Order: sequence, then structure tokens, then C-alpha cells
Amino acid sequence: MALAARALGASGVILSDTEDRKIKETVDKITENWGGPFFFEMGTGWRQAVKTWKEKGGVVVHLTAYGENIQKSDVLHRIRDSGRDVLVIVGSQKVPGEFYHEGVSDFNVAVGNQPHSECASLAVFLDRYFDGKTLAKDFDSAKVVIVPQKRGKKVVGHH
Amino acid sequence: MALAARALGASGVILSDTEDRKIKETVDKITENWGGPFFFEMGTGWRQAVKTWKEKGGVVVHLTAYGENIQKSDVLHRIRDSGRDVLVIVGSQKVPGEFYHEGVSDFNVAVGNQPHSECASLAVFLDRYFDGKTLAKDFDSAKVVIVPQKRGKKVVGHH
Repeated sequence: MALAARALGASGVILSDTEDRKIKETVDKITENWGGPFFFEMGTGWRQAVKTWKEKGGVVVHLTAYGENIQKSDVLHRIRDSGRDVLVIVGSQKVPGEFYHEGVSDFNVAVGNQPHSECASLAVFLDRYFDGKTLAKDFDSAKVVIVPQKRGKKVVGHH
Repeated sequence: MALAARALGASGVILSDTEDRKIKETVDKITENWGGPFFFEMGTGWRQAVKTWKEKGGVVVHLTAYGENIQKSDVLHRIRDSGRDVLVIVGSQKVPGEFYHEGVSDFNVAVGNQPHSECASLAVFLDRYFDGKTLAKDFDSAKVVIVPQKRGKKVVGHH
């Protein structure tokens, strides 16, 4: 999920309430080789992460199958119109009921009202939020860069 | 990945070269409760699945970070312009080199030329391929349906 977030234009990921050195190493290694900027923070409690974000003036978007449908409603426009930085929260397994409350989420958004994958939801949300543009972006300080090909693989070193 | 495929409008999934009763049960249960149509087939060798698809006149799209960029190139238009049914192939871990060959893939498509998640790539590909419309679709024979809400959860039984 962290790699999908990076590829689709997120500035970083907070893995809350959990520490996992192995995930951090994997993500940091990708960023080191393929470029950034992209931060990976872990261990912060989710309540603290949300509180800090709101104090800085950001909005919180909770992705959930129960929320407003990203295709059928105008929720994405309302998020964009807020003009504020967005923190997307996604749960693993069952999420705390508080995620749905006003004190936490400013928007509850459904990437389709069907059960599926948090990673897929996050990817589609970011792709739509950024209007597809981030899939074309160049990353800074990349050591390796893929040159798109109709067939085969082409990677060049970048110095 | 199968659930993301279903939620984003795929007709079904072939889990090739592998059999996993537990995955099949999970997916079939979701389709039974949340509606279809959606097939889940497993165990078929990938070569056979590709061969059968091509014999029926379909095209094969291989999702890979090395392929033509879905945002920067016209590859999605060319796939649509083929007017043919699409089989999307995604690998887990390292994919066979043959995936890139003409005998297998008609198109090699990158949902961004960055390493990330197959599930995320598939979701974004389907969302774009179907022009976002499948996220609004109603499933047939659903026993339960979510009524989208700004806050909280609302599920109704459907008979």
C-alpha cells in the first residue's frame, strides 16, 4: 500500500499504531533508488496523526465502502474545493467506529460501495484526486528510471 | 485482488497455475451476498488461459511497470479501439519473460513506471478502462446493498 501511495503521488505514509522495520526498509529503499520525495513514518497513534493533521489545517478523508460514492456523488469536488491538504485514512481489517465521526473524518468516501481492497481503493482515490497526472510525474533524485517500452524492460541509471 | 477486480467491473478472475479453496470460498461468498455476475476460476495454466482467450478473439493486456505509460501514451485508446474483449494479466512476484512476448501480450501497460502493487495497478487500469462507470454499477442478485452515507454505515437486505 505504501508503494502504491508513492507511485500515485502521495507525499508519504504514516503506518499508525504499528512499527515494522522491514516495511520501513523496503519503502525507504524504493525511495532511495526510484526517487522521492516520499516519507514513511510509523508508530504514531492514529488519533495523534489525525489531530496533528487537523491542527495544521488539513482535511481527513476516510476511505470506506459505506461512504459517499466517488463516482455517483460530488464528494471529490467538495474535497478539492476545500483547498486543504488531504490525509487519507484506511483501516486494515475492522476499523474503529470513530473513523466515521466528525471529530475524525471530514469525508467518508467509497471507491465503489462494494467490499474490496484498501490498496485498490487508495490507488483509485489518488488517481482521481490528482486527475491522473501523478502517474506521469518524474521523481527527484532517482538512481534508476524505467524507459517505457511496448515490449521488454529498459531501465537506465540516472546520475 | 479478485475482490478489487469484481468491484471495478471485471467479469471474473482466473487464478492460474494455483488452486486455493479458501480464496475461492471467500470470493464466491462475496459474489453470493453482494451480487454478480462474477466468475472465479482457478488452476488453469496461464498459457492455456491466454491461448483460449486469443482463440476467442480477445486481446491480452499485461500490466507491468516497464510497459507503455497509461497516462503519457495512447495505449488505453488503442486497447479500446481494438474493440475486443480484454484479458488483463498480472504476475505475483517475478513474472515469466514470455509475458512480454508477442505470443502472449498484445499490450504491455504501465500504471505508472514505478514499482508498486499489482492490485493497485489493476484497480486503476479497470477504473480508467471503464471510464469510472463501473464504480456506480448495481450488481445483480445482491442479498445486501450499501446505501452510501456521509457518516456511518447503512446496509439493506435485498430480496
